[in-house]
Amino acid sequence: MPHRRDFLRSAAALPALPLLARRAAGQPPPDVVSFSGLIVREAEPRNLEFPFTTLDRFVLPTERFYVRNHFAVPKIDPADWKLKVEGAVEKPLELTLDELKKLPSATRPVTLECAGNGRVFLTPKASGVAWQLGAVGNAEWTGVSLAAVLDRAGVSTKADTAEVVLEGADQGAITADPKSPGPIHFARSLPIRKARQPEVMLAWAMNGADLTPDHGSPLRAVVPGWYGMASVKWLTRLVVTERPFRGWWQTLHYSYFVREGGLPVLRSLSEIQVKASIARPALGEVVPAKSTHRVFGAAWTGEGEIARVEVSTDGGTTWADATLIDKSVKYCWRLWEYLWKTPDRRGKYTLMARATDSRGRTQPAQRNPDLRGYAIHHVIPVEVEVR
Amino acid sequence: MPHRRDFLRSAAALPALPLLARRAAGQPPPDVVSFSGLIVREAEPRNLEFPFTTLDRFVLPTERFYVRNHFAVPKIDPADWKLKVEGAVEKPLELTLDELKKLPSATRPVTLECAGNGRVFLTPKASGVAWQLGAVGNAEWTGVSLAAVLDRAGVSTKADTAEVVLEGADQGAITADPKSPGPIHFARSLPIRKARQPEVMLAWAMNGADLTPDHGSPLRAVVPGWYGMASVKWLTRLVVTERPFRGWWQTLHYSYFVREGGLPVLRSLSEIQVKASIARPALGEVVPAKSTHRVFGAAWTGEGEIARVEVSTDGGTTWADATLIDKSVKYCWRLWEYLWKTPDRRGKYTLMARATDSRGRTQPAQRNPDLRGYAIHHVIPVEVEVR
Repeated sequence: MPHRRDFLRSAAALPALPLLARRAAGQPPPDVVSFSGLIVREAEPRNLEFPFTTLDRFVLPTERFYVRNHFAVPKIDPADWKLKVEGAVEKPLELTLDELKKLPSATRPVTLECAGNGRVFLTPKASGVAWQLGAVGNAEWTGVSLAAVLDRAGVSTKADTAEVVLEGADQGAITADPKSPGPIHFARSLPIRKARQPEVMLAWAMNGADLTPDHGSPLRAVVPGWYGMASVKWLTRLVVTERPFRGWWQTLHYSYFVREGGLPVLRSLSEIQVKASIARPALGEVVPAKSTHRVFGAAWTGEGEIARVEVSTDGGTTWADATLIDKSVKYCWRLWEYLWKTPDRRGKYTLMARATDSRGRTQPAQRNPDLRGYAIHHVIPVEVEVR
Repeated sequence: MPHRRDFLRSAAALPALPLLARRAAGQPPPDVVSFSGLIVREAEPRNLEFPFTTLDRFVLPTERFYVRNHFAVPKIDPADWKLKVEGAVEKPLELTLDELKKLPSATRPVTLECAGNGRVFLTPKASGVAWQLGAVGNAEWTGVSLAAVLDRAGVSTKADTAEVVLEGADQGAITADPKSPGPIHFARSLPIRKARQPEVMLAWAMNGADLTPDHGSPLRAVVPGWYGMASVKWLTRLVVTERPFRGWWQTLHYSYFVREGGLPVLRSLSEIQVKASIARPALGEVVPAKSTHRVFGAAWTGEGEIARVEVSTDGGTTWADATLIDKSVKYCWRLWEYLWKTPDRRGKYTLMARATDSRGRTQPAQRNPDLRGYAIHHVIPVEVEVR
């Protein structure tokens, strides 16, 4: 998709370049919704954020869905592409896209959230892409279950520690990190137990259309309940291993610490933590005094479901229940709203939202530094002005 | 030791401050050999390098031995100090220094090398302390075997994966790394197999005297054959674990990658890699033409012994055997020399040394980037001038 990439580069440099000028430059008319709608956090590799203040529906269109790329988008011809399945399997496989599409498929909505979503709010500043609230989105994915593909190859290990490594075609040298290894592919593993869950998909379609290059065409993983780094894009290889895979993106990156007997121990990031985010009012928004103003957002969690969202309009002193909208869909965000009777007294007010899930987990008030720059799910205040 | 610390700080700022001025400033007369002899790589925490060009003997005096500290030197009163032994043990222990000294002790020479020794030569530049050649030294250590202490506590796990975590009193926040966890202690583990080897010591003395604060007083580990980070200083706790310990200093730091089936997999640094370093002539030294000039250095390895050192005086085109000096002592460096018939023709010449150990391992010519900033043991050229 050279046109889209050129356009993006121009859009980053010249956000206001008019349509006619683009046409004169030989570029296709841009999809205005797509690119004017996403915030460029990094131009190359492309890291684009959904402006969370524009949240307005359960399923986001593809062009409004955040993009998290670690390397340049690999150029893949779907006709030449195959998925290899190897390692501790009885029958190593190579599957074409047509062969995959002949397996029983399903379509399901799944929310993906980047593990670094919210990082821009951390103090001290953490390294990594400075996402605000919108490295999250909910889309409909179509594909085959990973379990079905593993069954065809026949997993030959019974080890409790077995994992499936998912490798992408995206690769390169990690120039930004002076302690990185030589050139590598993006890769991430799942414990065999999670890999066998029926919700874990190898998807070729998003929102009813073939995956776009930015979203992992021709095939990507979709791992419901886990942070987005597990949903490896541009899949080329599955490797079944006997022991946990200690790859770059689950040791030096996308990892955190837990304290065991006073000793901080590294863990690979996995499950999404419970979180509510306020879409509107936006930070600094002016809200009319003595009115009823809608506070609106979404909440999501990992393996459970959202049970409750509370809102505070006084900086966390008091909390009231928000209304959960529609019915709960597992592994999806849930929209919520709260009708705020705004005060007579003008001035700055601090709004907060706090979610609790069906397992009783709730958001912490303070950041735990052992999470490093990931799983940012403490309550983030939104200061607004009542006038 | 506030005096020493104050002195060091002054020394870093004012390396040429004369002795009389120091006395006038109320500072003790500095130990000139100690501090003029070490290169300050970082003043706080203290990271001091042995100038490798001054190598002149098998056992280095303590004041010429490199210092690698991760945090400020902890203040410990040996009378109050105890070593805790806990985790998967039958009988958790607390041992005083006197109790430890009553166990059978031994004195043995051991070479320690920092895993980052030689980092200053890496391109692209790696993060971490910019050691040249001298983050290595050989000293005599006195203490009890770690195995004897573990036997007293009675290791209660039979797991193959069992480890012993060694925790130091040194602690703090890792402010230089924006992805670090909250405040932690220095800690490092050994697989139970290595921990039980008789050569692994808990040492209270170095070169016949109590450990100095910089070298881990009152008790440190000495792990022969492993890079220095395993020889935890200021020991306060041993924790036997069932599973491998994934602490900060063996995952994000002091770790490297190996390729398994094309997948880069993280490993904790452990064994010292075979290496020869040239002490003299020094980089840029002027050497007389048409003479016999002594090329001199040391070579060391991990679990094996040094079998051979070769020298090249033409940038690696031809190699000749160096002479190994004295007899081999396991886990110690071995001094070597080569009598170079210097050429008639004046100009720049590139010297190289290359060691091979008793297991047939030899130094690579090129750096492997998967080693990140560690285990720097490729051949490092020394350019000299023949005049």
